[in-house]
Amino acid sequence: MLRRVLDVLPALPGGGGEGVPHLILGPGDDAAAFAWPGGGTLLLTTDAAEEGVHFDRRLHPLRAIGRRAVAAAVSDIAAMGGRPVGTLISLVAPPAEETAAARIAEAAAERAAELGAPLVGGNITAGERIGLHVAVAGAGTPGAPLLRRRGAKPGDGLFVTGSLGGAALGLSLLRRRKEGETTPLDPEEEALVARQLDPAPRLDAGAALAGAAHAGMDLSDGLALDLHRLAVASGVGACVQAARVPLAGRGAQSLEAALFGGEDYELLIAGPRQTVRAAAREAEVPLTQVGRVTAAGEGIRLERADGVAEPLPRRGWDSWTAGRRNPKS
Amino acid sequence: MLRRVLDVLPALPGGGGEGVPHLILGPGDDAAAFAWPGGGTLLLTTDAAEEGVHFDRRLHPLRAIGRRAVAAAVSDIAAMGGRPVGTLISLVAPPAEETAAARIAEAAAERAAELGAPLVGGNITAGERIGLHVAVAGAGTPGAPLLRRRGAKPGDGLFVTGSLGGAALGLSLLRRRKEGETTPLDPEEEALVARQLDPAPRLDAGAALAGAAHAGMDLSDGLALDLHRLAVASGVGACVQAARVPLAGRGAQSLEAALFGGEDYELLIAGPRQTVRAAAREAEVPLTQVGRVTAAGEGIRLERADGVAEPLPRRGWDSWTAGRRNPKS
Repeated sequence: MLRRVLDVLPALPGGGGEGVPHLILGPGDDAAAFAWPGGGTLLLTTDAAEEGVHFDRRLHPLRAIGRRAVAAAVSDIAAMGGRPVGTLISLVAPPAEETAAARIAEAAAERAAELGAPLVGGNITAGERIGLHVAVAGAGTPGAPLLRRRGAKPGDGLFVTGSLGGAALGLSLLRRRKEGETTPLDPEEEALVARQLDPAPRLDAGAALAGAAHAGMDLSDGLALDLHRLAVASGVGACVQAARVPLAGRGAQSLEAALFGGEDYELLIAGPRQTVRAAAREAEVPLTQVGRVTAAGEGIRLERADGVAEPLPRRGWDSWTAGRRNPKS
Repeated sequence: MLRRVLDVLPALPGGGGEGVPHLILGPGDDAAAFAWPGGGTLLLTTDAAEEGVHFDRRLHPLRAIGRRAVAAAVSDIAAMGGRPVGTLISLVAPPAEETAAARIAEAAAERAAELGAPLVGGNITAGERIGLHVAVAGAGTPGAPLLRRRGAKPGDGLFVTGSLGGAALGLSLLRRRKEGETTPLDPEEEALVARQLDPAPRLDAGAALAGAAHAGMDLSDGLALDLHRLAVASGVGACVQAARVPLAGRGAQSLEAALFGGEDYELLIAGPRQTVRAAAREAEVPLTQVGRVTAAGEGIRLERADGVAEPLPRRGWDSWTAGRRNPKS
C-alpha cells in the first residue's frame, strides 16, 4: 500500500516559474530528476540499511554496513547515467552503541568520498536498532539523456554489466562461516564475499551507456524482479537466455543467485545491439547480452539451456516483505 | 562521538573539475551547499522523526507525524535563505503497520507539495518502530548570499521571527489531555497545539533576510542551545534580554519553553539592526530584536527583567540524548 502511495505521486507540479528547478521525473525510477535553471539535471535518491533486514551484524562488519549503504544509494545515480554529487545520512542507533554508530558513519563518509559524493550532512537519533538512511544528490551526464526504466523497445538487446549473483553467494558464504564452517576461503570465494560487503556502483558504465541505450536500471533486487520492473515501465516483454547470464559463481546455486539474489548493483540495459555494444567497448565497460526485448504480450520469460522458454517469476529481494516474513540475513 | 565524526568531515574535496557541482559548504550548518555549474546553489539537508524520540503516537496523529517531519527538514533550507526543490523519504515501519505508514507517507507528500518541494522518491523498510527520514534538496535565493551560522559580529542585533515556545507548550497540552484532562482547549491553546503538530518553516523570512543578515539559523532545539551554536560558529558572545523574547504562550512556563523547548522552527538572525529591520519590514516578516551580539569573551548571557545578566545554559532539545535518558514525548 505504501509503495502505491509513493508511486501515485508523480503527477505533482514541478517548480514555480523561471529560475526555479523544474521537476522532470518523479517517483518510480531509480532517482528523481529536476532540470536546473541555467543547465544540467539534478538527481535525487534515497536508500535504507536497516538491521535485521538489509544487514546482520553477525555477518556484516560495521565498516561494511556504512560502505554498502552508500554504494547502494549511489548505484541509483549510476542507474540514471549520472554522477553523484553529495551524500546525506540519517542514522538511528541504540544509545549504548555510539561507538558502533560512529564507525558506521566513518565508513559511510569514506565510501561517499571515494565515489565523488562527499558526506555533507547527517544526524543521529537514538532508536532500538541500527538503521542507516542515505540520500544522494547527483547530476546528469552533460549532453546525455537520462537512463530511464521506460523506453525499451521490442527488438532491443538486453544487456547486463559485469557478473550477477555474487552478492547473494557471498552472503551464503558469510552465513556458513557464522555457522562454524572454518575452511579458509579461496580467492574466488573472497571475491564473492567482497561483492556482498563492498559493492561497486557502475558509475562509468551508466554515464557511458546513457546516450546509447533506450532504457536501464540498476540490479539491486535480482535480475528477475528488476527485469519485470523495467518491462512494466517500458510496456514490453523480455526473454532472458539462461546460458548467457554472466554468473559470478560456479556452483549449482549460481543461476538462482543471479536471477533472484539481489544486491549486485550491476546495470540492466536495453537498447539497439550495435550502438550499445559500441558504447560499452569504447568506455571499456564489461557488458554481456543476456536476451532480448519482446512485445508485451510475450511476457517475461527465461529460455533454458535446452531451448525451452518458461515464465520468469516476479520474485526477488524486497525490503518490505523481507523484514516481514523472510529476513534476508 | 558520532556528531564529532559528522563535524570533522567538511575538509572533503569539492567536486572534480569544470561542469561538476562544487562543494562550498560541508557539514555543520543547517544545510550543505554546492555551487551548481552554470549558476545557482544546491542545498542539501536531512532530518529524522523517530517514534519515542521525536513523536509519540499517543499524542501525535499519523498525519502530524508526516507533516512535521517534512516541515522540520524544509526549515533547514529556510535557515539558509533558500527555497526547497524536492523531498525524499525513507520510512521504517513494523510490518503490521502498513496502513499507518501509508497515512504518514501521504501526509508527508501533502506537506512537501504545499511547501513547494514535491515528494519525488521514497522507500519503506520493515522495522520495529516507526521512523521517518526526510532529505530535502533546495536552491539558494538567486543574488543573495547563503544565510550561514557563521558571520555574526559583535554589535549586531539579535532577532527572532514570530514567537517562541509554542511547540513545547503545545506538547504539554497534548500530554495533559492524554492524562485525562478534558476541559476543551481555548483558541489560544489550539494555536499552541498547532505549533507542535503542524509547524511552518519560515521560507519567506529566510529568503528576505539572507541578503541583510550577517548570520542565521532555524530554531529547532530552543533559543538557548541554538544561540550557543550560532555564537560558536561565529566566534562571538551574545546577550538575550528575557523581557524582549516574543513568547507564544502566556503562562509561567512560557519563557522556559521559548529558551529550552525547541521545535518552533522560527529563525534566529544576527545582523546590522537597521538593515535587518528594513528587510523584514519590506517582506512583511514578523521580527523581534531579542538582544545583541557581543565579544566572545562575554559568553552567552540572559539578561533578566531586573537587569541582572546570568549565563544562559547550553541546554535544549537533542535527539540523541533525548532518546537515551529523557524521551521528549
